[in-house]
Amino acid sequence: MENFDFYNPVNILFGKGKIAELNKYVPKNAKVLMTYGGGSIKKNGVYDQVMSALEGYDIKEFSGIEANPHFETLMKAVEIVRSEKIDFLLAVGGGSVVDGTKFIAAATFFEGDEWDIMAKRAPITKAVDLGAVLTLSATGSEMNNGGVVTKAATKEKKAFGNPLLFPKFSVLDPEVTYSLPKRQVSNGIVDAFIHVMEQYLTYPVNSPVQDRFAEGLLLTLIEEGPKAIAAETPDYENRANLMWAATMALNGLIGMGVKSDWATHMIGHELTAFHGLDHGVTLAIVLPGLLTKLKEKRGEKLLQYAERVWNITEGSDDEKKTLAIQKTEEFFQSVGIATRLSDYNVGQDSIDIISKRFIERGYVGMLPDVEVTDVAEILEARL
Amino acid sequence: MENFDFYNPVNILFGKGKIAELNKYVPKNAKVLMTYGGGSIKKNGVYDQVMSALEGYDIKEFSGIEANPHFETLMKAVEIVRSEKIDFLLAVGGGSVVDGTKFIAAATFFEGDEWDIMAKRAPITKAVDLGAVLTLSATGSEMNNGGVVTKAATKEKKAFGNPLLFPKFSVLDPEVTYSLPKRQVSNGIVDAFIHVMEQYLTYPVNSPVQDRFAEGLLLTLIEEGPKAIAAETPDYENRANLMWAATMALNGLIGMGVKSDWATHMIGHELTAFHGLDHGVTLAIVLPGLLTKLKEKRGEKLLQYAERVWNITEGSDDEKKTLAIQKTEEFFQSVGIATRLSDYNVGQDSIDIISKRFIERGYVGMLPDVEVTDVAEILEARL
Repeated sequence: MENFDFYNPVNILFGKGKIAELNKYVPKNAKVLMTYGGGSIKKNGVYDQVMSALEGYDIKEFSGIEANPHFETLMKAVEIVRSEKIDFLLAVGGGSVVDGTKFIAAATFFEGDEWDIMAKRAPITKAVDLGAVLTLSATGSEMNNGGVVTKAATKEKKAFGNPLLFPKFSVLDPEVTYSLPKRQVSNGIVDAFIHVMEQYLTYPVNSPVQDRFAEGLLLTLIEEGPKAIAAETPDYENRANLMWAATMALNGLIGMGVKSDWATHMIGHELTAFHGLDHGVTLAIVLPGLLTKLKEKRGEKLLQYAERVWNITEGSDDEKKTLAIQKTEEFFQSVGIATRLSDYNVGQDSIDIISKRFIERGYVGMLPDVEVTDVAEILEARL
Repeated sequence: MENFDFYNPVNILFGKGKIAELNKYVPKNAKVLMTYGGGSIKKNGVYDQVMSALEGYDIKEFSGIEANPHFETLMKAVEIVRSEKIDFLLAVGGGSVVDGTKFIAAATFFEGDEWDIMAKRAPITKAVDLGAVLTLSATGSEMNNGGVVTKAATKEKKAFGNPLLFPKFSVLDPEVTYSLPKRQVSNGIVDAFIHVMEQYLTYPVNSPVQDRFAEGLLLTLIEEGPKAIAAETPDYENRANLMWAATMALNGLIGMGVKSDWATHMIGHELTAFHGLDHGVTLAIVLPGLLTKLKEKRGEKLLQYAERVWNITEGSDDEKKTLAIQKTEEFFQSVGIATRLSDYNVGQDSIDIISKRFIERGYVGMLPDVEVTDVAEILEARL
């Protein structure tokens, strides 16, 4: 395996009733800004649980952080943090709220054009402390230091990250996911699955621990995902296992010392930026096309995946790889995600625009095996 | 799964050449005490690498920390830390040196009888900062906050732990393990294996992520362990995979939300305290006896272990469980560890003393299924 540094100081508070412990972790004298989304937390009781746990605290609120959070929206929160001298941010929501709150934390002390935090990966030297109460398990943002922000004006969706942006703590209570619409549960399962694949399905580097951890997460998502979608009433253990798998999928651990990719995410981000498709949906569309394109180059890892994750032991190597890709796509469909561009009315004209954008940018993921000229072919296979 | 809190802020610097980065992590103005064992680090070049990386630092040394570090020895270091106003401890060694250095860190500011840190689990409210350069992968001490110390005078071996005792960083360079005697490599493999078993082979709580991570570590140790012992010259990837598996075996992660035991360790500690047997050896002796005694009570997890780790799919349930225990013992033997008390000239008289000690203490591990009256039977089966 390759050399690596691993550091992840997030304090995870996992389980039912854990929101009640918030007052052990939010500093007593902090001026808190609680950030959230469209208000579902007021309907499902999470807002009340948080307020009850933090009785006596000085708390302001910022709501309206949308899915794929907008730079423009978040900058309004930055103004509040600056003017009100907020010194603790509490994100209550899913990955978009946590990502957006990390951006707020970084932008508050940033001098210059705050979009440069993404566009130029400008250095972050100071950030407001933050914590999170997770309401949707998917992105892993609750246990990492990165995020993704979209500039609505230019339809650009870009990532950022810094060790200063690890949440001090994240509360993961599986019960708060009970009221989620099935669509969000589906998206979360697919998102977590592809987070693992971006770090696992690349090239062998003799990393049996990382490989088996990744395979363990994939197997868990394959077992537990369809159960969550089929259940008439949510099951605690099922939701708990999905939640922990999604967190472990992107807290850095399985990516240590191995070759990571993220090309599926980069292409998916463009589909979201142009068409507003859900993040998980874009990944489910792109991945089968990407794996098919890379069937030879990533053949060794694809065969390992076929055998260990899908238990495919018969047929030629090519048949095994093809079947593994097919089963992957069927899994996305089994949790309720349509996997073709045509399912979302996205056509060749969009592919042309997105392809051009990658050609101008000059790169796709972190590995050279996906070239900018491959993007059109990968997407055309998904029409 | 059960509720849990997970927090592990240790910065892991993994790979060849990583010792050279020490000066990024040891505070520049610190008064450093470097702690080590019998001096093997002066023969294998690690001492020189550390000194070279920390050129210009104010470094004192404390050597002579023995295997199963003695309270009496460590208290001499505590006196130095106090009198010299040391403010950073750098442990350079295996689990005994790291454990011992954690005790020094805790004892320095402790008021009262420092043995109470173990004997009464007396609260630790302040500790000296510490970091580690690992030279033997086995105990996982490099990425957790606990340790075990032995009082030579009374032959007591006891554990302690506190979040203040997480190393700030640990350097894991697989190359530094090349010069280890085979006996220490063998012990390390068995120690890591049984750390996993203590957290895995108990009772099912519907924790597929934790179970598969544990199984992934066991499979890795089973694959890589015998290779390390058979190799005429050490192989980097082999040693790297063993090192990472041992660290992940006891950094808290696989124990989250599940039922842990530690009875094998508790019984093993007594064998070390009375007879000076290597820690790994004691575990390899005790575990097969413990699993045989618990074949019914822990049957469900034993069957999962038989199938997923040893690929045992045929025979009656009892046959599968028996074969899994047999294969476990054969694995210990395959890495060069004799697994019977008689191999070490330990007889019934010692069993009587140890059994009596547990009956006086009133408990064995953390689960009620191993009773104090079972200890004699477990050990007698291992004569």
